[in-house]
Amino acid sequence: MNKTIDLVAIGRAALDLNSIEINRPMEETESFRKYVGGSPANIAIGQAKLGQKVKFIGKVGDEHHGRYITKYMEDAGVDMSDVVVDNEGHMTGLTFTEIKSPSESNIIQYRDEVADLYIRPDEVKEETIASSKILLVSGTALAQSPSREAVLYAIDLAHQHDTRVIFEIDYRPYTWKSAEEVSVYYTLVAQLSDVVIGTRDEFNMLENSEEADNAKTVEKLFNYRPELIVIKHGVQGSHAYTKDGQVYDGKAYKANVVKTFGAGDSYAAAFIYALNQGKGVEDALKYGAASAAIVVSRHSSSEAMPTVDEIEALIIEQDGSL
Amino acid sequence: MNKTIDLVAIGRAALDLNSIEINRPMEETESFRKYVGGSPANIAIGQAKLGQKVKFIGKVGDEHHGRYITKYMEDAGVDMSDVVVDNEGHMTGLTFTEIKSPSESNIIQYRDEVADLYIRPDEVKEETIASSKILLVSGTALAQSPSREAVLYAIDLAHQHDTRVIFEIDYRPYTWKSAEEVSVYYTLVAQLSDVVIGTRDEFNMLENSEEADNAKTVEKLFNYRPELIVIKHGVQGSHAYTKDGQVYDGKAYKANVVKTFGAGDSYAAAFIYALNQGKGVEDALKYGAASAAIVVSRHSSSEAMPTVDEIEALIIEQDGSL
Amino acid sequence: MNKTIDLVAIGRAALDLNSIEINRPMEETESFRKYVGGSPANIAIGQAKLGQKVKFIGKVGDEHHGRYITKYMEDAGVDMSDVVVDNEGHMTGLTFTEIKSPSESNIIQYRDEVADLYIRPDEVKEETIASSKILLVSGTALAQSPSREAVLYAIDLAHQHDTRVIFEIDYRPYTWKSAEEVSVYYTLVAQLSDVVIGTRDEFNMLENSEEADNAKTVEKLFNYRPELIVIKHGVQGSHAYTKDGQVYDGKAYKANVVKTFGAGDSYAAAFIYALNQGKGVEDALKYGAASAAIVVSRHSSSEAMPTVDEIEALIIEQDGSL
Amino acid sequence: MNKTIDLVAIGRAALDLNSIEINRPMEETESFRKYVGGSPANIAIGQAKLGQKVKFIGKVGDEHHGRYITKYMEDAGVDMSDVVVDNEGHMTGLTFTEIKSPSESNIIQYRDEVADLYIRPDEVKEETIASSKILLVSGTALAQSPSREAVLYAIDLAHQHDTRVIFEIDYRPYTWKSAEEVSVYYTLVAQLSDVVIGTRDEFNMLENSEEADNAKTVEKLFNYRPELIVIKHGVQGSHAYTKDGQVYDGKAYKANVVKTFGAGDSYAAAFIYALNQGKGVEDALKYGAASAAIVVSRHSSSEAMPTVDEIEALIIEQDGSL
Repeated sequence: MNKTIDLVAIGRAALDLNSIEINRPMEETESFRKYVGGSPANIAIGQAKLGQKVKFIGKVGDEHHGRYITKYMEDAGVDMSDVVVDNEGHMTGLTFTEIKSPSESNIIQYRDEVADLYIRPDEVKEETIASSKILLVSGTALAQSPSREAVLYAIDLAHQHDTRVIFEIDYRPYTWKSAEEVSVYYTLVAQLSDVVIGTRDEFNMLENSEEADNAKTVEKLFNYRPELIVIKHGVQGSHAYTKDGQVYDGKAYKANVVKTFGAGDSYAAAFIYALNQGKGVEDALKYGAASAAIVVSRHSSSEAMPTVDEIEALIIEQDGSL
Repeated sequence: MNKTIDLVAIGRAALDLNSIEINRPMEETESFRKYVGGSPANIAIGQAKLGQKVKFIGKVGDEHHGRYITKYMEDAGVDMSDVVVDNEGHMTGLTFTEIKSPSESNIIQYRDEVADLYIRPDEVKEETIASSKILLVSGTALAQSPSREAVLYAIDLAHQHDTRVIFEIDYRPYTWKSAEEVSVYYTLVAQLSDVVIGTRDEFNMLENSEEADNAKTVEKLFNYRPELIVIKHGVQGSHAYTKDGQVYDGKAYKANVVKTFGAGDSYAAAFIYALNQGKGVEDALKYGAASAAIVVSRHSSSEAMPTVDEIEALIIEQDGSL
Repeated sequence: MNKTIDLVAIGRAALDLNSIEINRPMEETESFRKYVGGSPANIAIGQAKLGQKVKFIGKVGDEHHGRYITKYMEDAGVDMSDVVVDNEGHMTGLTFTEIKSPSESNIIQYRDEVADLYIRPDEVKEETIASSKILLVSGTALAQSPSREAVLYAIDLAHQHDTRVIFEIDYRPYTWKSAEEVSVYYTLVAQLSDVVIGTRDEFNMLENSEEADNAKTVEKLFNYRPELIVIKHGVQGSHAYTKDGQVYDGKAYKANVVKTFGAGDSYAAAFIYALNQGKGVEDALKYGAASAAIVVSRHSSSEAMPTVDEIEALIIEQDGSL
Repeated sequence: MNKTIDLVAIGRAALDLNSIEINRPMEETESFRKYVGGSPANIAIGQAKLGQKVKFIGKVGDEHHGRYITKYMEDAGVDMSDVVVDNEGHMTGLTFTEIKSPSESNIIQYRDEVADLYIRPDEVKEETIASSKILLVSGTALAQSPSREAVLYAIDLAHQHDTRVIFEIDYRPYTWKSAEEVSVYYTLVAQLSDVVIGTRDEFNMLENSEEADNAKTVEKLFNYRPELIVIKHGVQGSHAYTKDGQVYDGKAYKANVVKTFGAGDSYAAAFIYALNQGKGVEDALKYGAASAAIVVSRHSSSEAMPTVDEIEALIIEQDGSL
């Protein structure tokens, strides 16, 4: 099939409510600024800002928040025509973020019975998956049925239509019932994906283990479908492993940090963009890290997504050249 | 037992998130101001501001919002020592309020699996009920188990200890499973209460009928425990009925309306205050209506609660005298 | 309204599967004989056998067991026209009974998601309640929503139509969530009933206490609606208390015991029959005890229900006269 | 690891209650004979009777039925040391079977909240999977969490330890939420298995389609792990397909049919036995079909399982030779 879409993201599109008064505990804040949030929504917005053709598959509440999200993402350039409005009373998910200090930002999530977890397999369109180069899956959609089955179905369709599956682990403790349940589905989806991206902590969840041995992690997964695995270690940088045995080390860029959340999504958006542009893994690691450095210096995760020019300017500024 | 408390309220203490940008739909607002909310919490705060000795029975989430509510209500003078912090992952309930125009204010509520619905009968202390003159019950606490049973247990204790039961119907459509379920519990609790306060629409829910005949409504309930029934008709004013056959008509006061929500809670707080001060029903209707007029002219439902002086000033201003 | 029905029973109609091989543990039995079971179903069948005009309100599974129950009860003379066939996949409840020895009979109940617990208030017909002299309520129907609300609604209708409410506590530990929940609803329904019948153990559940003081139990309940309370003490006999202060002691009759279950239902059927015939409480206690003695000497609880002749023959045999 | 076990089966071990009075509808039967039931339990018992070393992984109710199952299977030679007794109140599953005529046998299943669906991943022992030649998975265990995750975890362990995965689809409509959900997990587990066995109807469920094209079915699955696929067409016989393109046609043997259920389990037990003995696919089809012909001529599914001698005698009788 003709690949007319660069990336289709499936999963959580929700509302972030970020404390307006920063550098204090949320008990002492008075007001919140709303933004679109949720890892795959942020990545979709990020990709659109980078000029990619992006579509979203998900479900939002039949209320003001759901309508806001759909409108915002459309305005940002994301094709929202496959997004379903819930008709069973499920609300849009929420994330309240406290920005206590540049290094401490606790969140409170409302994830019980939220709309994004109720997208069903029969609401995923085969032609959408078939016409996209990449299917981006994020881990929170696996936390509960039926969105779990919608993702598994989308992956099966992707395999049938030569659509590359990229798994951004995006672990959130909400709605999962046990560490074993997390591990079973993360392992399964990682084995079925072409690219897996996550923090070292997230790979620990996948393995239900504290061993944290990157070499073992990638050796095990390379027995299955993955060809490229990215393991992130925060400010220590990240490592990319390819099936043919290559290892690439990426550094983190300096940033004037406001808060740390949002870093992973902006990283993924730019990393995938660079790969899609035909750049090598080494360059992709730079684009990812630079994009992350920009988002952590801003108040939101979605609206903060940078353009190509901003990313490249930062790389040039800190590295001397692209 | 020695009645050292004027009123103990049981039920919902939650967070209100009111649109800061008013007179527009919530899809177009950008930020929210947080307040304590929930009918019995508002009434407790209102009563405390009127100088009453007030205690609260409820459950809040083990997170920033729960801690904020507890601190705010304590500071407002409400004894929060019986409030339980949830330890099963239930979050504090939320209400987002749109202030589209003075007469149109839609709300979105997050009520699925919220902490206030998980207060259990064994978490209600007999000595608290026994030492209070009034037990204030609000209808949302009946919407689900186990808070439903906690309220029924509290009412049984109130009967045993000569504590007057006041039922503020406070109907919210969330978490109820059917109109019949609403009717069964509202009917039951109304029959077990000494005073029942609600809007005409809420009495329709109680009767699961659109008949809306005040005379029939009170005739039926006076076969049971109630001695005083207040039926509110918005700007048309309200009617109070007593078991001995008296009917009192109360008018609404003029107000510079910002939004209509919060009116009922401020009405109840001042109405009960006036009765407790030994004033007659006719005066109580005035205090209730004046208090409501003040709250609808302000941005919140809880922080907006007036003092005795403010209420009496408004009555004098509009009626010429108290 | 014209009272054309002697008794309408609401609640559980289920399947009993009694071990055919008796006097051994169920692990060693090979086969089961099926019977209709469930306290209100047994009482309805018992009453019909005693010549009373009886109707049943309940819900059965849309399968062979449900059809068997409806057919069996109709053949026994119970009007089953108000019984609803479940259309949501709920199965008929089951009770497997082990008859290990005359004094030891363990049961296993299948009560999760069973049809009888899904009867809804809107499936209870006002005209049925209105046209009956007695509404018989049994406690298991209170164990879960929506059958809990159906019973509360039926009681409210009974009050409106001068239908006497008899509460057979019939405690079964299944599907209740806590001892407090049991106590709240048993207390409530006892307070709303005209007659309450139960074992001392069941009144302990009602009081959520091990105090077991009959005098206190009846004193508390006589503050409410009840006029007659029967507390059963197994082979030690039973006590009946009336609101005007009378106490009646009933003895147990000798029996060739096969198993003890079913005793309570046959007791209730005959006790209520005698009252309805205008006999005094003293005689009613005899009829109840004689009926119980007959059922414990037989294999089932429903098919074993005696006729008036059988009951009176046993009384004459053991007492010398009626 | 040393493969000391021939086959470990995971999933449903439940109770069958077969009508003793046959050739009539269940509404008219009076009694039931109990047997162990459930596809993987039957296959485990069948394999043990064929002299194989067999272990079972599952969960049973903490009641008479659960104890009966454990004892019966142990006596039949199945190692039950990994079977967990439920401690959360879940009951053993039940299947009531009507034997209306040789060709019509309806069943009623009690599958809500049953113990076998509550086996968790952390209750599956790695060393058990590692020490077995074969892991037998049956489809009903996929119908709900957490037994679904326990099976997925067991399959992942099997892959790590070179344990062959055989998937007996065994579709039962109970507890599944939608046809799409069935299809997602059947597809996934089929792709992860080495051998897949099912009826044509079951492969339709896997494909969520009525197309019923064996060639397409196997072509699709052979893109994944499976090496051998058996599609059964009832009395028309069955077809076995191997990854290298071979097709084998198996016929059904004549039988004096009492009822048709149990055929699939006995087929699987003998088919797997023959393969394990080093016989070719052609012979395995004969052993499976002969074993099925024996079980359909008997009253139960488990106790009816034949010995090697009985199977071979039937083949010789009908084919003239082995």
